Formats: sequence, C-alpha cells, structure tokens
Amino acid sequence: MTPLRYESDTRVIERALVDVDLAAATAAVRRLSPPQTVDVLERLNRQQRAILYRLLTKEQALAVFEDLEPTLQGDLVGALQQEDVAILFADLDPDDRVELLDELPASVARRLIQGLPPHERGLTATVLGYPHGSIGRRMSPEFVAVRSDSTAAQALSRVHQRLEDAETVYTLPVTDDRRTLVGVVSLRDLLRASPATPIGELMQPAHPVRATDDAETAARHCADLKVLVLPVVDNESRLVGILTVDDALRILDTAETEDQARTGGTEPLRRPYLASPIRNLVRARVVWLLVLAVGATFTVQVLSAFRGTLSHVVALALFVPLLIGTGGNTGNQAVTTVTRALALGDIGPRDTAKVVAREFRVGLMLGLLLGSVAFVLASVVYNRSLGAVIGLSLLAVCTMAATVGGAMPLVARALHADPAVFSNPFISTFVDATGLVIYFLIAKAVLPI
Amino acid sequence: MTPLRYESDTRVIERALVDVDLAAATAAVRRLSPPQTVDVLERLNRQQRAILYRLLTKEQALAVFEDLEPTLQGDLVGALQQEDVAILFADLDPDDRVELLDELPASVARRLIQGLPPHERGLTATVLGYPHGSIGRRMSPEFVAVRSDSTAAQALSRVHQRLEDAETVYTLPVTDDRRTLVGVVSLRDLLRASPATPIGELMQPAHPVRATDDAETAARHCADLKVLVLPVVDNESRLVGILTVDDALRILDTAETEDQARTGGTEPLRRPYLASPIRNLVRARVVWLLVLAVGATFTVQVLSAFRGTLSHVVALALFVPLLIGTGGNTGNQAVTTVTRALALGDIGPRDTAKVVAREFRVGLMLGLLLGSVAFVLASVVYNRSLGAVIGLSLLAVCTMAATVGGAMPLVARALHADPAVFSNPFISTFVDATGLVIYFLIAKAVLPI
Repeated sequence: MTPLRYESDTRVIERALVDVDLAAATAAVRRLSPPQTVDVLERLNRQQRAILYRLLTKEQALAVFEDLEPTLQGDLVGALQQEDVAILFADLDPDDRVELLDELPASVARRLIQGLPPHERGLTATVLGYPHGSIGRRMSPEFVAVRSDSTAAQALSRVHQRLEDAETVYTLPVTDDRRTLVGVVSLRDLLRASPATPIGELMQPAHPVRATDDAETAARHCADLKVLVLPVVDNESRLVGILTVDDALRILDTAETEDQARTGGTEPLRRPYLASPIRNLVRARVVWLLVLAVGATFTVQVLSAFRGTLSHVVALALFVPLLIGTGGNTGNQAVTTVTRALALGDIGPRDTAKVVAREFRVGLMLGLLLGSVAFVLASVVYNRSLGAVIGLSLLAVCTMAATVGGAMPLVARALHADPAVFSNPFISTFVDATGLVIYFLIAKAVLPI
Repeated sequence: MTPLRYESDTRVIERALVDVDLAAATAAVRRLSPPQTVDVLERLNRQQRAILYRLLTKEQALAVFEDLEPTLQGDLVGALQQEDVAILFADLDPDDRVELLDELPASVARRLIQGLPPHERGLTATVLGYPHGSIGRRMSPEFVAVRSDSTAAQALSRVHQRLEDAETVYTLPVTDDRRTLVGVVSLRDLLRASPATPIGELMQPAHPVRATDDAETAARHCADLKVLVLPVVDNESRLVGILTVDDALRILDTAETEDQARTGGTEPLRRPYLASPIRNLVRARVVWLLVLAVGATFTVQVLSAFRGTLSHVVALALFVPLLIGTGGNTGNQAVTTVTRALALGDIGPRDTAKVVAREFRVGLMLGLLLGSVAFVLASVVYNRSLGAVIGLSLLAVCTMAATVGGAMPLVARALHADPAVFSNPFISTFVDATGLVIYFLIAKAVLPI
C-alpha cells in the first residue's frame, strides 16, 4: 500500500512519455502492479498508450491486457504486431474475447478466431451465438458442473481436476442426467460434508437466468442475490454457462455509467475520460444539444404567441427563468427518483398508476409550498395580482412537472426504450414550453389585460 | 425460474393485505424464496410490512431479515417482540449488526448489544470503533488468516476448522508473526499445491485498504481489482478485517443511488421508492427546490436590471428560455461526465487544470456549432443583428457553462464535499443567471439601443 510512490511514478511516466524518455518510463512502469498500470494507461492518449504498453514485460503485458476495457484493448490491437495479438487473444476468457471482438473490424476478428485452438474456438462460438445485450454473450462457458446423484467426494475430485482452467470452483452448478440445472452447491459445503453425502442433499436453489435475458437485468439479479456465481440456462433449462460476480459488477458499472450519461443528456463515452479525444467528447454531446435546442424553439413560439401580453406587462418576463427553472428542477427530481427505482427493480411497469398517483401528490404538495412562499413574497415586492399569477403558476407547473417526470421513465420502459433517454434535460425542455403556456394563460385570466 | 408465478403471488399478497385476508397472504408468501420475499416487503408500507413479516416461518424470517436494507430492518425492530429481535440481532454478521444499530434509537441499540454473547459483543465493538463512512465500519472482523511460514496442509486444516463460522474461506489473508498483512492466498491455490508447500510461495500481493479509508473508495478498489476479498489493515499494517465483494457491491450501489439522487437535485431516499411515505418524498426534495428557487431569484434581479433594454426590444425576451436552457444543458453534460469520471477514479483533483482545459475546448466547439446554426436561422427569420446577438450569446454561454460545469465537481472534491452536490439543477441555476448577464451585455453592444 504505497499510494504516494505510485502517484509519483504516474507523474514520472506521464512526463517521460511527453519527453520521449523511454528508459525512465520503462523503469517506472515496471514497478507498478497490473491494476496500477491499467490506471496509468487509462489516463493516456491512444498513441502514448501504445508506446507505454510495449515497454511492459511479457508477463505484465498479459495481465494488464486482460484488465483493460474492451475499447482500449481494441485500440491496442491496431498498434501491436499480429503474433503478439494472437497470443493475447488466446489468453483471454471466452466472454472477454467476445467483448473484444465487438470492438474490432470484421476482418481482424475473423483472423483472430481462426487462429484459436479448436476447443477455444468452440467456446467462443457458443458465446458469439447469443444476441447483443443478452447475458449469454457475457457469460463464461467454462464451468465445472457436478451431477446431483454423485457424492461429495466425487464432486471434490472433479474440482481438483479443473483447478487449472475453470473460471471459478467456489460455487458449482448441479445438473441431472439430462444436463438440466437442478441447483448449486458451494465448495464450502462440499468440504464440510462427509465424503459419501449425495450432492442432492447439499445443494441449494439456483435462481438461474436465461441466456437470452437482458445482461443488465441478469447482473442486477446476481447482485441482489449476493451470490458469487449465477447459472445461465437455455430455454429448456439446460445449463449453458455461468455469470461470475466480478463480471456482473462490470456489467452494472457500465450500465450505471450509461444511465448517468443519458440522465445528463449526453451519450456515454466509450473510453475513460482522459483517454477520450476532444472530438469524441463533442460528438457525445452535440446531437443531444441540437435535439434539445430544436425542442426549445417551442418556447420561442409560445412566447411569440403571447407577445401582446408580454409587451403589455413587461414584468411578466422577469419571472420566466425562475418559473421554468423551478418546473425543470421538480421534473428532474421525479425523473431521477423513478429512473433509479426502475434500475434497482424497486418498481416495474405494472406500478405505473401507483407511481403517477404518488408523483402527482408530491408535485401538488411541493407546488403548494413553493407557490405560497412566492405568492407572499411577490405580493409584498410587486402587487397582489402578480403574486397570485406567480403563486398559481408555480402550483400548476410543479404538479405537472412531477407527474410527467414520474410517468416518463415508465412510459419509456413500456415502449422497451432506455428509461434514462427521457433524461433530465429532456424533461426540462418539455416543462419549459408547457410551463410557459400555463404561466401566460393564468396571467391572462388573473391580470386585467 | 417461475417469474410469472412469483408475480401473481405478489399480487395475491398485496390484495390479501388490503383485504386483511391473512390466510391467503400466509399461503402465498410461504411459497416465495427469501430474495422474492424481500422484493415484496420493499413494495409495502411500514404497517403492511410488519404484518407480512410476522406471517413468515421462523426459518424464512431469519433469512429475509438478513437480506433487508438496514432502514427496513430498523422499521421492523420497532414492530416485533423484544425476544424475537434479540434472536435476529445475534444472527446477523457484525458489520450488518453495526449498520442496523445506526438505524435504531440509542436505548434499543444499547439493550441489543448487551444481549449479545461476549465474543459477538467484542466483534461488534471492534467495528463500532471506526468512524462513520469508513470501511472499518463496514468490514467483517470474522476472517480466517493463515501464517506465511505455515504449509498448504496446515492452512487447509485451518480452513476446515472454520468452515462453519467464517464469512468466507475462498481468499485468505496471509500474515507474518506480528499479525502484519503480507499477502493473500486463494483456496484454489491451496488445493492445487502439494501439502508441504510454504504459504509464502503461494501467496499473491494483497492490495489492502486502511480501516479508516472512505468506504466508497475501498469498495471501488475491490471492484476495480476484481477480487472476492479485500483485506483491511490498521495504521501499522496489521490485519483487522476483510471486505467481501458482496458487501463492496452493496456499498457501491448505495453510493450510486446517492450520486444519482443528488445529480437530480434531491436528497437520496432511505427506503425503496414504494416503501417511502409521500411526506419523505416531499422532504427529500423540498429543501433543494427552495435553495434553487432562491438561487433563481438572481435571474429576476438580472432581468430587472436590464428591464430598459427588455421593454425597448421585447423580441429579446423570446429567446431567454432557449438560451439559458441550452446553457443549462451544456453545463449538465459537463457536470455529469466529470462527476462520473471522478466516481470511477478515472480522474482526480490533480487533473483539475487538464479537465478545465478540455471542457473549455469542448464548450467552445459546441458553442461554435450551435451559435452558427442559430445565427443563420435567426438572421433569416428575424434580422441579422438579432441573429448576431443570439449566435454570439450561445457561443459565450456554452463555453462558460462547459468550463464551469467541468470545474465544479473537482472544486467540490478539493473541498472534501460530495462532487454530486454541485448537481445538474445547481449548475443550471448558476448558468441561468450568468447566461442572462452575458446575453444582455452582448445585446446592448450589438443592437442600436
């Protein structure tokens, strides 16, 4: 645990790469552990990353490559010798291999698959056979399963045979004679049991997922159950793979990064922040900004329509940002809360009516609170009728914003779209335009115009 | 895997509780697995939850209680018999016990601790001794450690002795004769090695965390390393506990829920969405809304200050929501991206200058793109000088918003505050006011007023 030393090594490496002092960079990077090296590589641009990677020892290089994100692995593949790539590729687990393949041009991918030993090629093909976004594509097909009619001793000897190559041996799926999953057994229980105990007596319920299930849902299931391994089955309940907790964690991390990006109105970055070129940052944001700006032209039209009212009572213009800002904030809060509850599985599409009713009540109470405060303040500073306009508008806008904000993510889910797409900026833009209509209608009704 | 049956059971239970048909509820809930029962309990209000919980079998009740969130455990403790609570409490792991204690009134907590067997009381006290928010408070003090000078056979026999009670036996911390942590060894490597091999030859580097380290940082470290167990040491590098991957996952989940809530401008809920009373939802949001509304009164003041310009050219008012909305969106994007990169450890406070420079460039490019489009459109629809005002304002506002939005989370981190506090609504409100100043200054300079 020498974070200070590691931090100074990082600086040395970054400076050495800028100065093209490869001796200094080599000396520094060879002192780092693989996870530390990954941290450093994620901070560099593509060119520096390829240079530094080639300075690693052969041993380091393998361990580091495995830990890198698939996108960065893909970047490196383009910069390395073909034979080095083939070695690295054969060394990856089948699920990691498939993730990398998704990043590579088809011709490179085909060449790499053909270079694999037959057994590995078969495993890779299994995983490749499942659709994008399914857990089948992220599972490991290299598991150790035991039969329910075998004994603890037989199962332990099977574990011993597979200690070298299996992805994990700590939780073992249990199958019957037709490869149907019937449970799981932990190595701990195997070690604790007397050797002749039948596995059927030691096993626990398996809570499996189907290979075609959505990867994020399956990973969330693994996390909620707090298990090290989740068995993956086909439509006939036959065991086809396992999802390990570290892979589940990676899937959830990526999903949360995507959710947060969309919530903030940007496309997720495919590389770590410092490793993303500026043009990628711009590209991830500009489309959303343009779409939202087009949406915002509705506000120009609404204001144009009420231009007469506006030039009559210029004071109305003063409260436009406050009003639509508060509406946007209320909508944001509802969207954020409901999107997270959906992601955690706390609510589902069947709760739509319940959620909308709750958000309506919350919005109404927030509107009453803020509206009364605004009514009193604006009555004192300006006059009572302007106070009434602002107070009533806040009441209506908060109620509308919370209700719509709460409903949006559920509507998206019902349409099989990503709930986070109805993001905070989206709801703000929507609330801006409708809030203005409400504001001016109330103003026209209350004020003597 | 019978999700359909489970879903209909859930409906049956919810309806039975409303109708107070306890026989139907009992029959349905006893068919569910503990994780499914937790799901159902999280959807009920406090009263229904206590009723349903008391319908569980003794065996179910123990398993379900362990899996519940501490806040919900706390709710239940108030509704159960003292002796039932004492049994549940003794059954929890020391780290889970401490989490529950934080939810309970001090008098109840004291009584429960006194009711523990002496050994368990000691373990609980160890964990209670670390500060709130530190990993020491979330670690497990019940680990199996092995000595580096022992053999694989000796280590395995130690594992066999502790199969009943240890939190995990799959990754074992290795210590020297002064309890100093020197590495970790996996059960897999122990099983694979010949019995006489010294542990010193089998062990791997440990990458430990300090007990006083921030819990979220430690959990992130565990996830990044993809290890099942992270050893926790004191300031003298002596082993004091372990963090298991499932606990790390729980810590990260809570942290991400908090981050997302703050990003949306609300306080995190302490219970699942449907289990939160409406007044809690209102309370979690109202303070932020009021603070932001007070911030938004600056926009009223800015517009008041430029009231002359506004009544002179009422057309300027038409573009206010579009302009500040786009600024807010640009700021949101920067805040979201940088906050997530910070949470993932991709960037740190030392990268501030680099991040600000990058965001400035991104904002400038976005501003140039949007500003040119707006200039052309507004020149055609209105006139060239209004087009120039809007184009230039967008350029300036986007650049400002991205730069400030990128800097904010880093400033918060440097001040040891939660980066997510400088949330999207916060940056929107800030950009609203400054954006208006920029807009009217440009208008006064360009237009013949």
